[in-house]
Amino acid sequence: MITVLAGGVGAARLLRGMVRAVPADEVTAIVNTADDLILHGLSISPDLDTVTYTLAEAVNPETGWGLADETWQAMDALERLGGSTWFRLGDRDLGTHLHRTGRLADGAGLTEVTAEITRAFGIEARLLPMTEDRVATMVTLESGSEVGFQDYFVGLRHDVAISSVRFAGINEARPGSGVLEAIGSADTVVIAPSNPLVSIGPVVAVPGIGDALADRRDDVVAVSPIVAGSALKGPAERMLRELGHEPTVVGVARLYRDLASTLVVDTADAALTEAVEAEGMACMVTPTIMTTVDVATDLCRSILSAGLSAGSPEGPSR
Amino acid sequence: MITVLAGGVGAARLLRGMVRAVPADEVTAIVNTADDLILHGLSISPDLDTVTYTLAEAVNPETGWGLADETWQAMDALERLGGSTWFRLGDRDLGTHLHRTGRLADGAGLTEVTAEITRAFGIEARLLPMTEDRVATMVTLESGSEVGFQDYFVGLRHDVAISSVRFAGINEARPGSGVLEAIGSADTVVIAPSNPLVSIGPVVAVPGIGDALADRRDDVVAVSPIVAGSALKGPAERMLRELGHEPTVVGVARLYRDLASTLVVDTADAALTEAVEAEGMACMVTPTIMTTVDVATDLCRSILSAGLSAGSPEGPSR
Repeated sequence: MITVLAGGVGAARLLRGMVRAVPADEVTAIVNTADDLILHGLSISPDLDTVTYTLAEAVNPETGWGLADETWQAMDALERLGGSTWFRLGDRDLGTHLHRTGRLADGAGLTEVTAEITRAFGIEARLLPMTEDRVATMVTLESGSEVGFQDYFVGLRHDVAISSVRFAGINEARPGSGVLEAIGSADTVVIAPSNPLVSIGPVVAVPGIGDALADRRDDVVAVSPIVAGSALKGPAERMLRELGHEPTVVGVARLYRDLASTLVVDTADAALTEAVEAEGMACMVTPTIMTTVDVATDLCRSILSAGLSAGSPEGPSR
Repeated sequence: MITVLAGGVGAARLLRGMVRAVPADEVTAIVNTADDLILHGLSISPDLDTVTYTLAEAVNPETGWGLADETWQAMDALERLGGSTWFRLGDRDLGTHLHRTGRLADGAGLTEVTAEITRAFGIEARLLPMTEDRVATMVTLESGSEVGFQDYFVGLRHDVAISSVRFAGINEARPGSGVLEAIGSADTVVIAPSNPLVSIGPVVAVPGIGDALADRRDDVVAVSPIVAGSALKGPAERMLRELGHEPTVVGVARLYRDLASTLVVDTADAALTEAVEAEGMACMVTPTIMTTVDVATDLCRSILSAGLSAGSPEGPSR
């Protein structure tokens, strides 16, 4: 059994390889929900949907999120009415949000609704929201004003300097159903190459999840989302820098060393192996840029081999 | 100034003629909101939208509601997810509901949001929700169970016997902004040929509206939605019968005689003129079946001439 801590696009691509590296029904993803938002009355879970659409081979290949062959009639109509359309919701994508919102209003939990949606999309892997409680990533801009994550990420195209990040509601949040068990019973836990601060950060900040992960440290393998000093997608490099972290695999190692025993870095960062090891983690070097599903599958096989060798006598110790 | 009490399709067709019979900016419609519902988290106002789309010449001409040239990607996606799709929401129509829901969540009132939407659709007539408070028409089926109006009307296709109707929340509802003034200051108030029980019924049941109408009785003209003993659209005939009313223009006269001084009936009901007058209303006979906008415009001209002659010494008195 493999458990993957997941954010959005990077995690989705890793998971697409993972369900080829091992039987799909042996894969559980614990997915960030701190980016979730309510917009126009609809409950939207961007990371859950990105993972779902990717595993269903239905994702828009150009953006990495949203559905392929999408239409935009509702957004066009909303725009004509002068409504706010900065967060683009395609017509077919709206079907997902309508279903989720309606089922939550019926009293179903997000874990249950997510299972319904993934089942309808033919997905055999299990997707678990990190929590069913409301957690909201809030970003303080350098200007001093605090905005919701999607306002920063989509509305401002993460093109502004920030001074801090917090997860509103995190202290009251409880791990989602099955989450602690999925960490406790996994053969290997993988931290996907997602943003350490705002994708993985909220997951491990849910009370109980970070401790459960630390308990399994020997079997936890993290994949660096930073390659050669930059992020493949999104603002991870910039956020790390602005919040006082080193935007390199060494900076990533410092963030993960208490939770994971191994860091997987791209071949471009081979020269930093010793620096990563100096932070107390084993360092595995392998191609991590998932340009194709085959690369992703090979990466997953490498990750799993690292997970199996970690914790052995030859493995690293702090 | 002309004020029209309005339900859905029949009222919309009348209003389409009214804005041709008089300058559009002299027309105010007070629209039933007791059919409104929250579905999938979205605030849906069927009668307001039917009137809006019709006046914008954007309505689906086959159904009389919804938008012409609509697409159904969101509903198809929702259906694949196993969501409930009995209430069909087209993709472009969804733009309206997204906008309304978002603006209401921002704290705007339904009157303000309705004005925004009608303005965006280029409508010069003024549409006023009967109330901004939540009123919900509830229908008790012969089986004894009570369902929301749309469950009866759309879900069950009004193909079941009913034993009663009530308007939940009506006693706490206040007339919408501008509603009482629109009745008080109108030259003529027209009761559109909508269902007397579940379209006009809730409007006049809002505390204050019925009294305001009764005060203007001499200048109120009602158009019968019943022609030759049946309703042109919807369950009016059946509902009247099942709830103990006569499903004829005479039965309609009995429902409206305290609020309106004149009843306009179709030429098919010319033989019932004296029976209507026996109920204390003047009776005008004219074609009321609005197969074309020209017929609707002629009907409105006739209504207005009736309104102008009513209350004169030659007019009826009770």
